[in-house]
Amino acid sequence: MSQDFDLVCPVPISDYSHILLAHGGGGKLTHQLIKNLFLPAFKNEMLEAQHDGAVFNLGNIRLAFTTDSYVVSPLFFPGGDIGHLAVNGTVNDLAMCGARPLYLSAGIILEEGLPMEILCRVVDSMQKAATTAGVKLVTGDTKVVERGKADSMFINTSGIGILEHNLKIAPHQVVPNDVILLNGDIGRHGIAIMATREGLEFESEIESDTAPIADLAMQMIRAGIEIHCMRDLTRGGLASGVVEIAESAGVEIDMDESSIPIREDVQGACEILGFDPIYVANEGRFIAFVKPADAQKALDIMRGHPLGADACRIGVVTKTSKSGRVNMTSKIGATRIVDMISGEQLPRIC
Amino acid sequence: MSQDFDLVCPVPISDYSHILLAHGGGGKLTHQLIKNLFLPAFKNEMLEAQHDGAVFNLGNIRLAFTTDSYVVSPLFFPGGDIGHLAVNGTVNDLAMCGARPLYLSAGIILEEGLPMEILCRVVDSMQKAATTAGVKLVTGDTKVVERGKADSMFINTSGIGILEHNLKIAPHQVVPNDVILLNGDIGRHGIAIMATREGLEFESEIESDTAPIADLAMQMIRAGIEIHCMRDLTRGGLASGVVEIAESAGVEIDMDESSIPIREDVQGACEILGFDPIYVANEGRFIAFVKPADAQKALDIMRGHPLGADACRIGVVTKTSKSGRVNMTSKIGATRIVDMISGEQLPRIC
Repeated sequence: MSQDFDLVCPVPISDYSHILLAHGGGGKLTHQLIKNLFLPAFKNEMLEAQHDGAVFNLGNIRLAFTTDSYVVSPLFFPGGDIGHLAVNGTVNDLAMCGARPLYLSAGIILEEGLPMEILCRVVDSMQKAATTAGVKLVTGDTKVVERGKADSMFINTSGIGILEHNLKIAPHQVVPNDVILLNGDIGRHGIAIMATREGLEFESEIESDTAPIADLAMQMIRAGIEIHCMRDLTRGGLASGVVEIAESAGVEIDMDESSIPIREDVQGACEILGFDPIYVANEGRFIAFVKPADAQKALDIMRGHPLGADACRIGVVTKTSKSGRVNMTSKIGATRIVDMISGEQLPRIC
Repeated sequence: MSQDFDLVCPVPISDYSHILLAHGGGGKLTHQLIKNLFLPAFKNEMLEAQHDGAVFNLGNIRLAFTTDSYVVSPLFFPGGDIGHLAVNGTVNDLAMCGARPLYLSAGIILEEGLPMEILCRVVDSMQKAATTAGVKLVTGDTKVVERGKADSMFINTSGIGILEHNLKIAPHQVVPNDVILLNGDIGRHGIAIMATREGLEFESEIESDTAPIADLAMQMIRAGIEIHCMRDLTRGGLASGVVEIAESAGVEIDMDESSIPIREDVQGACEILGFDPIYVANEGRFIAFVKPADAQKALDIMRGHPLGADACRIGVVTKTSKSGRVNMTSKIGATRIVDMISGEQLPRIC
């Protein structure tokens, strides 16, 4: 077949002749793969927007379309499971595009020998999450691979949502003076997974924050908040989300570490495990870049919603800058530059 | 977590306490999983239509939405590869809904250690297949799992297409006297995979028939052919496709074995391997149920298209019948009842 292969592999072979776990970590190597391989191959505006999904017009409507595969290990963890995650993750990506989620697909890959009860529990969980999020699972596919050729089960969900407003919500809409809001405390999902995987016990059980944030995002949109961009803070955590947007938008951002809510038990667990909470994954947290004049109103809406009770202002876009630099003032007043996650902190977090 | 689990596992535990390869084979066990687990859990009209995708109205347009995961082994085979398959398979499912394919998503699961060159070749192949089929890949996701936790790579593609006509194309639209047309010879994809996997050599290399059939399907629709249902003949082959539709539509079907085109080398390979070609997978073949008065015109359109040169009439819907029975008259005049594939003839064919 090699004679048919005329795409020169654009990723420097010397550095990455093979796929590393970090290529799926949502940080630097994931972005290199996107930038050096996927974008040049499938060159189109929607992919180049580097948003959580594609947004396009069809007939008289504007739609969003997104996909995510879920390979979380273990399948069940405090606060959720792979089924819950597979619905909420895709619902949230649609919401981050400004779309009201409507329909989901599910592509399930099962390992031969998986107990039927596990599949039933996951399907039950998907059904409940879909009902909560107000979406319908309308099409699906099941494949089975031989024992040892997958790890219990993987789920892909893709989603279609409708944009019922005229806002343009995308990284390149972010401009200087935009205020960055966060809907609550960070790091719980990553720590919940890690604790389960490693058999760690903390004084209180830390549960994943997995939740559908579409309803909150739609409330903000319906209230007329001028949102320029939103991003849910999954793989790579808060830091990777902010840096991604700064780089895509070509802006510099200042963040204030002391404003970021982190639960004491999560902070403690991070210290024990050697994690920086701004890199730890969440599944129900997002940031919104809003027009300064709308920031207080947006914050009030967030705080009035069950999924935004601890919402706060965590930073501001200071200027246009190709560097995409993110500066963070620490609790003791020092300033450091925040980078995307590099390497792989916690594989298979979602 | 067990206290949260209140869905009584609806699949009889005695028969299927664990997932078997056959649950992904596209035959009886796949259908039991759909009927006993997925349909009751996600209860909605679109899923219950048991079509190749969901069809729904949004704004002033009618859309189709479909998903498939591709786990084919080996990744490369004569005539195609997993990337080619991942684009064509989903394009074809949209076409079978009567939709012109527009946008695809790609969710790629990679095994740690996969050579970067393999990924590049597959991406290149996806890009070429997308260009040929006239679709854009607009959103994607990449996950990496540890070495030994997946088999090189799995790809999910989901697709959105638009229906530009008023036909209702679905299994329950099939009625007595409908003529069943097939666009060409069957069995090449399955035999190509099997030969590669088992290192078999035949006199001439048998190549997969993988191809995008959307253009041909759209030509038939645009010509005003009254199509009642279409189905591409992948897992489970021609037999499973016909039986599925007969059961969903509640009709009885007569087929004529001698009318089904099978290449001599494919027939020979099937005999050596002990396969019945009507159960062997295809990736560029479909059946269309059309109004009798339109059958000849439809056949002429098929035969005028590069992907339908050997198209033929293979059967007819004889009557309404809850049995969903499919009778096949053999070459020597005997009649047998055709069933869906049971067990797993050839795992990971797509």
